Amino acid sequence: MMTSSPRETILQLFRETTTGFVSGVRISEVLGVSRTAVWKQITSLRELGYQIEAVPSRGYRLVGSPDVLLAEEIRSGLDTRIIGEDIRFLTVTDSTNLQASALADAGAAEGLVVVADRQTAGKGRLGRSWVSPAAVNLYLSVVLRPAVLPVEAPQLTFLSAVAVCRAITEVSGLQPTVKWPNDILLNGRKTAGLLNEMSSETDRVNYVVLGIGVNLNMTAEQFPTLLRYPATSLAIELGRQVSRVEFTRSLLKQIDTLYDEYLRSGPRPVLAAWEEHCDLTGKSIVVDCQSRLIKGIMAGLDDDGALLVKTPSGTFEKVLTGDVRPVEQGM
Amino acid sequence: MMTSSPRETILQLFRETTTGFVSGVRISEVLGVSRTAVWKQITSLRELGYQIEAVPSRGYRLVGSPDVLLAEEIRSGLDTRIIGEDIRFLTVTDSTNLQASALADAGAAEGLVVVADRQTAGKGRLGRSWVSPAAVNLYLSVVLRPAVLPVEAPQLTFLSAVAVCRAITEVSGLQPTVKWPNDILLNGRKTAGLLNEMSSETDRVNYVVLGIGVNLNMTAEQFPTLLRYPATSLAIELGRQVSRVEFTRSLLKQIDTLYDEYLRSGPRPVLAAWEEHCDLTGKSIVVDCQSRLIKGIMAGLDDDGALLVKTPSGTFEKVLTGDVRPVEQGM
Repeated sequence: MMTSSPRETILQLFRETTTGFVSGVRISEVLGVSRTAVWKQITSLRELGYQIEAVPSRGYRLVGSPDVLLAEEIRSGLDTRIIGEDIRFLTVTDSTNLQASALADAGAAEGLVVVADRQTAGKGRLGRSWVSPAAVNLYLSVVLRPAVLPVEAPQLTFLSAVAVCRAITEVSGLQPTVKWPNDILLNGRKTAGLLNEMSSETDRVNYVVLGIGVNLNMTAEQFPTLLRYPATSLAIELGRQVSRVEFTRSLLKQIDTLYDEYLRSGPRPVLAAWEEHCDLTGKSIVVDCQSRLIKGIMAGLDDDGALLVKTPSGTFEKVLTGDVRPVEQGM
Repeated sequence: MMTSSPRETILQLFRETTTGFVSGVRISEVLGVSRTAVWKQITSLRELGYQIEAVPSRGYRLVGSPDVLLAEEIRSGLDTRIIGEDIRFLTVTDSTNLQASALADAGAAEGLVVVADRQTAGKGRLGRSWVSPAAVNLYLSVVLRPAVLPVEAPQLTFLSAVAVCRAITEVSGLQPTVKWPNDILLNGRKTAGLLNEMSSETDRVNYVVLGIGVNLNMTAEQFPTLLRYPATSLAIELGRQVSRVEFTRSLLKQIDTLYDEYLRSGPRPVLAAWEEHCDLTGKSIVVDCQSRLIKGIMAGLDDDGALLVKTPSGTFEKVLTGDVRPVEQGM
């Protein structure tokens, strides 16, 4: 269900005006509220970073927009079929995955997007945390309800990964690589992470939440000194900032396109696209599975998204969880 | 965390008394409440079906207990390690699985039990409903947090099934059989159903809810006329009622024992016990997988709980979802 907030309506009026100005009377009529209430909405937009001039007898004029992930900004010009009809923007939240899961439990439709400016408890894989400062990055979750078996749902992690890679290239021209199971790298350094969560019965998926965190405009100084892996952001690699709104719109469009293909053609096109983004395919790797190390050639993904490793004896090992690294020179 | 309600404390005082009587003054002191508040608690116990006499100058005497699934009744004499330290009894709820999932989302510890006298939206497999009238049956959910991979979690459906079978035999002497994936039958008619639900990441289980519905004292007249399968209850098969509290205590004890074994020894003992309860093992079956029919010999369960069917060509088919029926004479 499409929600249209007063803020969204005002921004829409600014977009539609031909004179540049929208009068307070007009806004008051369209919203059906008092002039005082209009003034309060203008103030709240200014607090979000919108530069709005008030010119006596002509009205309000929008002279500058911030890069804020408001639903109304993301949706403006967003051309998708399933993803993002309903977008919830939160200035601050514990974790967009937690919020999206709660909304899905309450019956939210497929395609719901939750996006936050800042997370206080951003989640990474296996209970790790995800550094989530305000105003610089993207923290986003999407609710899907695919008619697949629970064992097939991990395929969707690779769908998220390919969507993030394509959005990065579209917005920045950079060429990211992927690392099994859920990392996206630029020049070998972690730029985005994925955390898909699922609610399921034994033979039915209730819903999947695609959780996506992308370091967009974070500076080197904003990273904690102790990280498990070297990390970077699009801005660090590019030497300039990127538009968060533009990136988000691109990402949602990519997810929409890939998900449509996934539903029509099954997982193979998505898995093949992921394998193309993986620079270790065909290379010697070591997989650390906690209880044991597996060495071999990375052969790609099986249909459920498990990692296939060809061992020296010629057999294939199917890996469901673990950390992958290339075999270093001399190992 | 153990919760002790005023009701539970009063029932405990009745159990501990040697004279048969507990004075209002004593209850008032132990609970730290007024005599009026004590009287209200006694009234609430009477409304639940407890027969309590009040004898002037001697106090209260418990002369009869109802078969109500109060946490305090179930816990009395319950000797478990993990399951049932925290039991929540609800007179009526939508679905114990929904309530248990919500509590697990909020951080409930492993072993939490939610039990209801009646469900308004009892859930069966694949979105089917589970008939859940008041006062006669058992509707119960258990929260587990096993350190297994999501693909392994379906094993726990078979753990529930074996626990229900053992509790039925312990309480009634009847010998139930199981039907893949989640039914328990008496004389070929459905007596209990299981609906396990899971919250997971790609390579980690957040929690599993074991959902268990058992027809205990339901009469033939209480079944809807249109059911997918012929159904029965313990009382119909036995010709007498069974104690719901006793059955529940037995079930929780069986789950506790099996889960402990599962964590120590892996799934094989549980899967083998299930195969022993399955009267179709080694027989000719047809599996209706919606898109196709598979015919062959039921060979048992693979380690993840999938059904293994040996086809006429000698190969094994692994079935993740479907409905099983025996091949009838002459097919």
